[in-house]
Amino acid sequence: MALVVQKYGGSSVADAECVKRVAQRIVATKKAGNDVVVVVSAMGDTTDELIDLAEQVSPLPPARELDMLLTAGERISMALLAMAIANLGHEARSFTGSQAGVITDGSHGKARIIDVTPGRIRDALNEGSIAIVAGFQGVSQDTKDITTLGRGGSDTTAVALAAALNADVCEIYTDVDGVFTADPRIVPAARRIPRISYEEMLEMAASGAKILHLRCVEYARRYNIPIHVRSSFSQKEGTWVVDSDDIEGRDMEQAIISGVAHDRSEAKITVVGVPDKVGEAATIFRVLSDAEINIDMIVQNVSAASTGRTDISFTLPASDGQTALAALNKVKDEIGFESLRYDDRIGKISLIGAGMRSHPGVTATFFSAIADAGVNIEMISTSEIRISVVVAQDDVDTAVAAAHRAFDLDADQVEAVVYGGTGR
Amino acid sequence: MALVVQKYGGSSVADAECVKRVAQRIVATKKAGNDVVVVVSAMGDTTDELIDLAEQVSPLPPARELDMLLTAGERISMALLAMAIANLGHEARSFTGSQAGVITDGSHGKARIIDVTPGRIRDALNEGSIAIVAGFQGVSQDTKDITTLGRGGSDTTAVALAAALNADVCEIYTDVDGVFTADPRIVPAARRIPRISYEEMLEMAASGAKILHLRCVEYARRYNIPIHVRSSFSQKEGTWVVDSDDIEGRDMEQAIISGVAHDRSEAKITVVGVPDKVGEAATIFRVLSDAEINIDMIVQNVSAASTGRTDISFTLPASDGQTALAALNKVKDEIGFESLRYDDRIGKISLIGAGMRSHPGVTATFFSAIADAGVNIEMISTSEIRISVVVAQDDVDTAVAAAHRAFDLDADQVEAVVYGGTGR
Repeated sequence: MALVVQKYGGSSVADAECVKRVAQRIVATKKAGNDVVVVVSAMGDTTDELIDLAEQVSPLPPARELDMLLTAGERISMALLAMAIANLGHEARSFTGSQAGVITDGSHGKARIIDVTPGRIRDALNEGSIAIVAGFQGVSQDTKDITTLGRGGSDTTAVALAAALNADVCEIYTDVDGVFTADPRIVPAARRIPRISYEEMLEMAASGAKILHLRCVEYARRYNIPIHVRSSFSQKEGTWVVDSDDIEGRDMEQAIISGVAHDRSEAKITVVGVPDKVGEAATIFRVLSDAEINIDMIVQNVSAASTGRTDISFTLPASDGQTALAALNKVKDEIGFESLRYDDRIGKISLIGAGMRSHPGVTATFFSAIADAGVNIEMISTSEIRISVVVAQDDVDTAVAAAHRAFDLDADQVEAVVYGGTGR
Repeated sequence: MALVVQKYGGSSVADAECVKRVAQRIVATKKAGNDVVVVVSAMGDTTDELIDLAEQVSPLPPARELDMLLTAGERISMALLAMAIANLGHEARSFTGSQAGVITDGSHGKARIIDVTPGRIRDALNEGSIAIVAGFQGVSQDTKDITTLGRGGSDTTAVALAAALNADVCEIYTDVDGVFTADPRIVPAARRIPRISYEEMLEMAASGAKILHLRCVEYARRYNIPIHVRSSFSQKEGTWVVDSDDIEGRDMEQAIISGVAHDRSEAKITVVGVPDKVGEAATIFRVLSDAEINIDMIVQNVSAASTGRTDISFTLPASDGQTALAALNKVKDEIGFESLRYDDRIGKISLIGAGMRSHPGVTATFFSAIADAGVNIEMISTSEIRISVVVAQDDVDTAVAAAHRAFDLDADQVEAVVYGGTGR
């Protein structure tokens, strides 16, 4: 008998019919002889509707109360799911994050999991019950206040519970059949990736593939929890995210390209005419760090000897753009730069694959493919298993398709089906 | 400095605008120098919408899960209310029933409060914060599961918290200006009752006056908590429900009629031709008790000597009518009665007032008034401070108005304003 943790996003439980369909899938897993723990997000647009209500009441709602409000969403979906399962003749018990023992720090809206003490879940399983757990939420260790985990929170809840319960697999249900070599909406010939390592999945997630959140994959890697990403709308095998040692053929020293990811959510800031002195770059990024802005790529041009000045460009989430510009303008005189340039019409294309660093041909092929498609590369950044380039936003689709083709990733026939929206 | 517990029903927080208006009233109470604890119900129709969702998913949802679902409603309203107060520059913290220390038994859907341990509420007050508490909900002592208190639950939460915190007053906000001598929708000349004793208020509630629930008044009487029933739509003084010793003039031995209540929610069952043997009535009411049906009035006719049989009539909530008929039919042969008659087109009129038992004229005046209005009395029942009669449902309005007039309760001018719907 295996212990299976399943996570269903908001689109999988969007209405009563969806809830009943998911209940059938859960019962089927139970009937197949497994212990089942289910993590569920709020129904469809519930969270957006609650945020809208909060905005009607207060322009800047206290974070503690916003968390209290938003966690009502999972309370509704999990109770309905437990009812639907009971209606199929199986016992199900729903648990809030607090009841499930999801202990977090006190950062409302973006709490981190500190510990998971799933005693009540274990009891429920031991008594033959299916346990339904509210995703996205926990309880703070110090104040005992309700917290939410922020973006990707329900996926993280599922993996954290799987780790604490020593589950055999964590199934993440979504609206596509797994992780693909590129976004099927851009590259219809994208192929499903049967198995991918935690490291590559992390790079995919960091590079804009929205199917799994970074935190969830990090957590799974730390505790070595196999994740099975699959569709709640079909019975097809999806993508397994596992340790690289568990992927056949990976011991051979060849470059294996997993896929092409893209991200349209970033913006680029260029700090023009920075005096070429020791510590100037450090000051710039200290200012941004103090403003809690995550920087992605950084490029510093070679200093022009004639002026003693240089330009520093970096990318960041476009949603942080105005905050970053304001923070930098405050220290303009201190640093002595000339001006700031801001561009949010950019896109990032990333090629992800094991062993590419030791195969220079990969980089050459990637750049050539993009150049041959007539797309100009603005910035470049690399890691052991990833190469990213920044291009104009309008060129993203062209560049993704070109790179996908250049690495022979195109399938012979269309495999991907996109079933609906995406959950939290 | 006083400690004030305020309770706002669903109609008082029906939408964002209502929430903001209530927040202003709460802040005004705080600014006047009071410590404030607020108990709030779910917004407007939230509970009905959640029940509707549950019914879409399961015809008979498990009670534990239904409680988990319904408690999402107060979680939303209390968080929004805390936000609205924060927006007015005052600190407010919301607490679930469990966080507020409302400990109940395990009867889902109709849990009884066992204990209240409001440590977190006290801490919040000591730190200068306004405490917002979810009405209607608690946590079971044994299983730690979320429970709901059933009908009138939020009022009971408010009084229970007021008792545990030793509050100076429990203000129950509703959509009328207090308790009236009759329902103003039937008797426009009804008068607001400035002060009423717990006992009379209990009889009013038991007799169909919906403004305060029986449980809440019982709780307040046991712990001697003054209740101030008033409108959230006006600043007028409402009705104080207090110990009879605290009402001026009550030490004189005169009958004081508080008001005329009515109830259209009951039905009448007549068990026809019951053998006139010892224990037959006991068997009938044991069967009904086993089916968890609350009986109100009971009348047994004198046995007709010729047949050795008698008829037994009783009233009960019409919603329990079919269950009661089924339960009785099962024991038809055992008891040997001839048939059952069912009538849900009845209404109950009750006259409530202190000292009426020792003033026979009260009863005579009451019956005469109803008779003179051409209304036939079907059943009669009395207590120390109440006389109730059952009449045809269509005659209720006429009978109420006639009794109200006969006891000189009509005001010189219309006092009552009904502002909207009613909350939970």
